Amino acid sequence: MDIIIVGFGTVGQGVAEALSRKAPSIQSAFKEKMRVVGVFDSKSYDLSPKGLDPREVAARKAKLGKVGPDLEGRRLIEVLQDVKYDVMVEVTPTNIKDAEPGFGNMMAALSAGKDVVTANKGPLALRFRQLSKAAEKSGARLRFEASVGGATPVINMSRELLMGERILSIRGIENGTCNFILNRMRDEGLPFDQALREAQEMGYAERDPTYDIDGIDSAAKAAILANAIFRRDVTFDDVRRTGIRGVSLEAVELAAEEKKVIRLIAEVSESRLEVSPRLVPTGHPLAIGGTLNIFQLMTDLAGDITVAGRGAGKMETASAILSDLVALMKEDCASRRRNGSGNRI
Amino acid sequence: MDIIIVGFGTVGQGVAEALSRKAPSIQSAFKEKMRVVGVFDSKSYDLSPKGLDPREVAARKAKLGKVGPDLEGRRLIEVLQDVKYDVMVEVTPTNIKDAEPGFGNMMAALSAGKDVVTANKGPLALRFRQLSKAAEKSGARLRFEASVGGATPVINMSRELLMGERILSIRGIENGTCNFILNRMRDEGLPFDQALREAQEMGYAERDPTYDIDGIDSAAKAAILANAIFRRDVTFDDVRRTGIRGVSLEAVELAAEEKKVIRLIAEVSESRLEVSPRLVPTGHPLAIGGTLNIFQLMTDLAGDITVAGRGAGKMETASAILSDLVALMKEDCASRRRNGSGNRI
Repeated sequence: MDIIIVGFGTVGQGVAEALSRKAPSIQSAFKEKMRVVGVFDSKSYDLSPKGLDPREVAARKAKLGKVGPDLEGRRLIEVLQDVKYDVMVEVTPTNIKDAEPGFGNMMAALSAGKDVVTANKGPLALRFRQLSKAAEKSGARLRFEASVGGATPVINMSRELLMGERILSIRGIENGTCNFILNRMRDEGLPFDQALREAQEMGYAERDPTYDIDGIDSAAKAAILANAIFRRDVTFDDVRRTGIRGVSLEAVELAAEEKKVIRLIAEVSESRLEVSPRLVPTGHPLAIGGTLNIFQLMTDLAGDITVAGRGAGKMETASAILSDLVALMKEDCASRRRNGSGNRI
Repeated sequence: MDIIIVGFGTVGQGVAEALSRKAPSIQSAFKEKMRVVGVFDSKSYDLSPKGLDPREVAARKAKLGKVGPDLEGRRLIEVLQDVKYDVMVEVTPTNIKDAEPGFGNMMAALSAGKDVVTANKGPLALRFRQLSKAAEKSGARLRFEASVGGATPVINMSRELLMGERILSIRGIENGTCNFILNRMRDEGLPFDQALREAQEMGYAERDPTYDIDGIDSAAKAAILANAIFRRDVTFDDVRRTGIRGVSLEAVELAAEEKKVIRLIAEVSESRLEVSPRLVPTGHPLAIGGTLNIFQLMTDLAGDITVAGRGAGKMETASAILSDLVALMKEDCASRRRNGSGNRI
């Protein structure tokens, strides 16, 4: 399996590190090579058909600010025409306005029959249908566990483990930063602005916190769940969205008196698509503290199933991408095996 | 996919009901028939190569106490020699002494190259290695999500979704009855015996509660996790086991003063295999209330991932069995598709 990594910021470098650590054991389990044959950042690239050492590329990026020769204004798609690869790991930054450059990158790969594994929410939240159609047409596979819930395997669990279930709805906490702020307001009696500043100082929130606290991040993820799990055809703009900017300390304290907490909850079903602050009873799974993500799936046969994990972070996101890469490898391997053309594992 | 159901008590009837409800949508998704061609209880059987109506068989069982003609002393294995089927759903009662009749049934199927899906803990906790070897030798598949955690997909999540992770350990609450008793002791200040009686009255505990409260059920499940997820070669007897019989109300109250609860925790890793009552801080995921099952997986890249759901119940167990059946169907379908001999879905 020859992989190219497109986007080499925190997540891309995490994927490189994860692959360095894990490729040997994965290769020996599946008796197939797993190589990174190309790395692209926004301005430069590095290619080697025999496989790069991803840690070496990361070291170069840290030292020189680029991964290799300049693209010199050429578009990635042009360069890619000469590259032999099987899977594109697309981890350029999420752009919730027009989904670029992720959308173009993914379409180039999928149209050429190459599998795509991504953490990039923009294309999935804005143009999911087009991506799916391109994949279907060429027979390529599109996987995106890392786009929602970080290391929490909510998408693959819903799509691949609960296949006999009708999933009636999903309610979840998809943004650790908001959860951290709401917790600090309650636990320390801090007003919103102060809790936000603390989150910024601790590195949980960006300088411009809009993306988190206005529910943009959560809404993008809700749209992805609606498309991927409920087979709806929605975009980010279809999500009814209220952030936590309007949550006052008084409201948090009033909730506490009633043994409740306020949480920014996403709710997705066949008929609902909403992100908003809600009251949750203390002791309820969704009253979870810290910066974890949690998803509660309501199903027809199994009842409620809850899954929780770290919603963000370099290695956590890389872990979800790795799980998708291994899933592709396993599918290929099972297919070869059942047809007698490969080794058993 | 032609299925036989072996064992037609609560779980077997749940599987029949789940298949009646779900087969149409599954068939249309995978463009493959899903039929029950045989049902066996301990004394009788019903066969039809064209497919039975599982609800009809369940109604007959309720009315007549049997599903069809008497076996008349013939062993299941003899009857099976004339039956054409693809998958055995083995749901005879768990026998933690010698694993029969489940073990013999499963071996007959696996040795003949038939896939097995089961909820039966005995064979998996006592003779896992032999089952795996039989499956490996014939190329048959053995799936058993329903054996641990009821509807909670802990096994398939660990084995199929977190494939890039090294799972360092699993800690979990695997028995809802014990959790109910421990909760009632704390919440209502009931002594153990009284809480147990209440659990019996509410139908959570059997008349002979040994299996639950002495940790036998939990230990069997811990052995299965060790075999299936940590690739160990253990049996039920290798589990260090302490039940909750010795948990006094005083201990529960003392724990409460320190903001802790007592839980019957299973811990499984490469080096540990233990079921015992432990102190858990209030607010910790494992401090979960009610009769839910919960599993906390510690992993190297993703950190902790927690999954919780209903640990027992007719439809919950049937749901896990159904998910395994659909997984087999999906694998077959993917294999056909990648080789151009089937329809796309």
